[in-house]
Amino acid sequence: MPTSLKKVFIITDFGYKDYYVAAMKSVILDLYPYNITFIDVTHEVEPGDILDASFIAWQLSLLNIYNSGVLVVVDPGVGSQRDAILIECEKNNVLVGPDNGVLYPLASTLGIKKIYYIDYTNQKYFVNVSQTFHGRDVFARALGLYFGGDREFLKEKENIVDNDIFIYSYGRDRIVFKVLHIDRFGNVITNIPCYEEIPNKINLWAKGKVFLLSKVNTFSELKRDELGLLCGSSGFYEIVSYLKPASEVIKLRSGDTAMIILSS
Amino acid sequence: MPTSLKKVFIITDFGYKDYYVAAMKSVILDLYPYNITFIDVTHEVEPGDILDASFIAWQLSLLNIYNSGVLVVVDPGVGSQRDAILIECEKNNVLVGPDNGVLYPLASTLGIKKIYYIDYTNQKYFVNVSQTFHGRDVFARALGLYFGGDREFLKEKENIVDNDIFIYSYGRDRIVFKVLHIDRFGNVITNIPCYEEIPNKINLWAKGKVFLLSKVNTFSELKRDELGLLCGSSGFYEIVSYLKPASEVIKLRSGDTAMIILSS
Amino acid sequence: MPTSLKKVFIITDFGYKDYYVAAMKSVILDLYPYNITFIDVTHEVEPGDILDASFIAWQLSLLNIYNSGVLVVVDPGVGSQRDAILIECEKNNVLVGPDNGVLYPLASTLGIKKIYYIDYTNQKYFVNVSQTFHGRDVFARALGLYFGGDREFLKEKENIVDNDIFIYSYGRDRIVFKVLHIDRFGNVITNIPCYEEIPNKINLWAKGKVFLLSKVNTFSELKRDELGLLCGSSGFYEIVSYLKPASEVIKLRSGDTAMIILSS
Repeated sequence: MPTSLKKVFIITDFGYKDYYVAAMKSVILDLYPYNITFIDVTHEVEPGDILDASFIAWQLSLLNIYNSGVLVVVDPGVGSQRDAILIECEKNNVLVGPDNGVLYPLASTLGIKKIYYIDYTNQKYFVNVSQTFHGRDVFARALGLYFGGDREFLKEKENIVDNDIFIYSYGRDRIVFKVLHIDRFGNVITNIPCYEEIPNKINLWAKGKVFLLSKVNTFSELKRDELGLLCGSSGFYEIVSYLKPASEVIKLRSGDTAMIILSS
Repeated sequence: MPTSLKKVFIITDFGYKDYYVAAMKSVILDLYPYNITFIDVTHEVEPGDILDASFIAWQLSLLNIYNSGVLVVVDPGVGSQRDAILIECEKNNVLVGPDNGVLYPLASTLGIKKIYYIDYTNQKYFVNVSQTFHGRDVFARALGLYFGGDREFLKEKENIVDNDIFIYSYGRDRIVFKVLHIDRFGNVITNIPCYEEIPNKINLWAKGKVFLLSKVNTFSELKRDELGLLCGSSGFYEIVSYLKPASEVIKLRSGDTAMIILSS
Repeated sequence: MPTSLKKVFIITDFGYKDYYVAAMKSVILDLYPYNITFIDVTHEVEPGDILDASFIAWQLSLLNIYNSGVLVVVDPGVGSQRDAILIECEKNNVLVGPDNGVLYPLASTLGIKKIYYIDYTNQKYFVNVSQTFHGRDVFARALGLYFGGDREFLKEKENIVDNDIFIYSYGRDRIVFKVLHIDRFGNVITNIPCYEEIPNKINLWAKGKVFLLSKVNTFSELKRDELGLLCGSSGFYEIVSYLKPASEVIKLRSGDTAMIILSS
């Protein structure tokens, strides 16, 4: 019996009203009935929102993860031709999910050691694979088998689908950026890293409207109805307001493009 | 100290904003402070929806469960005369919940070995039992005591309340079925098993309206706004659409009856 | 390697769509990679609702908790001058959170042994502390370090911010009380303890409207559309209705003040 604790982080768009996540955990524990701590990151990714899920998965790289499994099942192409993949990364981390870009930001940040596709036509390891629930029948199964030492169903693969969510453009008079995520508090997480210098008062152009933002260090510096720009805990600028969701005011969503106007 | 890992699956209508589920877990760990992995299946069953909860519980039989506890607390009759029961099933599984039908589909599929009612008037094991929270005071307590080896509070019982959610009628020109569950994606899970043959194009009659369904193998075969019928991962036909909740179009809910028209 | 199981109860207003809770768990396991069972009490506290969170945390005192960590992160003042605290309580329980009153009811009920503030300017233990996510960078870290035996970053402190949520007034002809919490079922949990005697039929005055309440023992004694008052499982009177949220009828929210009229 292995003694070291394994962590398994799980990200899906399965929500909280179904048995789907429980099914995946049960399959993993069947194949590896030892010391696993499951950490549900979120199951509330909007159905099929690959960008959002890939950012949330990437946030795990902000933690000191090692010896962990990461299972990301946001898979609008389930049952079609996309590959199912398993990626070995540095520090003994292993990532499993569909090859649709959802694993790319995390894998490339952790450092990719080897990429495999999961041969789920291999009847020795995979039987009765459904067309619609690869989370249970392919991904969780592959992770459990992998933990147990099986490798036979893994076939090396050169590349994975790219998904560069961190591209923004810092021009002479504007920064064109992408919204990575709207968090629970309505904070709008941009893909502009905090090391970029931004003036203290700037205009945000979002969906045809312009908003004034003040740079602040923390939420409580803001007055009611004031919008702020702060360096968030993930290392990117976030558009925020105080005790009120900024996203409701500026109507941006994950994946949207917007601009910060630098010149006055 | 027992070394084998125990899994405890929990299904309730308690939601996620209260301490109720935490209370049950804490009570179990008090009485059996060993190696338990809690698997929250869902706590978002609609308040009092026994049919829905019994189907979700039944889905656990699709997994290879053994050596597990299953706690199902959807209990609109709490505090009234209904029994609290514990069922020993095959493969060392034990089910606990109210005797209102919620455990019936899972228990009968796993295979019932013995049925008990929980004598929670036994002051040696049960004190200060509330009128409204048997999840904490009766069910979790009974499971923890059972894991710890206590049996004295269990009294044999012959039958449990029946709840046959799988009855449908396949007639000459129509299939009359019941909706078992609406999942997070708005897929409408019927109680028609996939082994029933159904033509490729059929009409669905639901609440006075008629919809055309195309049989498909996976979501991505569907065009936008098209409705499909596919064999879902639980072994039943599901009414689906692509990247959009079918349930919002056809307005069916868990427990509703509807018809598939076979003749054209 | 320590062998005794530790429970860590977590209460936040972080919701379920972000990686924030996972980040805290990961940090704790990094610093104390042993046998921890995380029990998510709730993450659906309304953003910044200290009263509600403090009541939910207090409910843990209804359980037999010992050898546990309790992490409560509802922290609208994050990044401002409020202290971060760690409280040692009776039965080997340790509470961690912001010093804004959120820990007060639980700590004072369990029995306070020692109060510390967390010196997160100590660079030996705390690096790169963000302005906005002390859950990850201060509170989880402090708990993990504490479990691992580190104490150097803890500085004794005399008092914590008071938050007496249990004050009500029982007058000659009325009881003026506070709403502690609205639960998932719409039950309105008051702060009137069940040992107070209340007549069988009383009037509730809430936000300018008057409602008739009947005292009952359990939900099923109520008729449709009837409002009841019962002794809830937390030891306080709750305003309830049957299979319907009472809170939607009487429009009370956590923190509201209302009155029970005793004279007719």
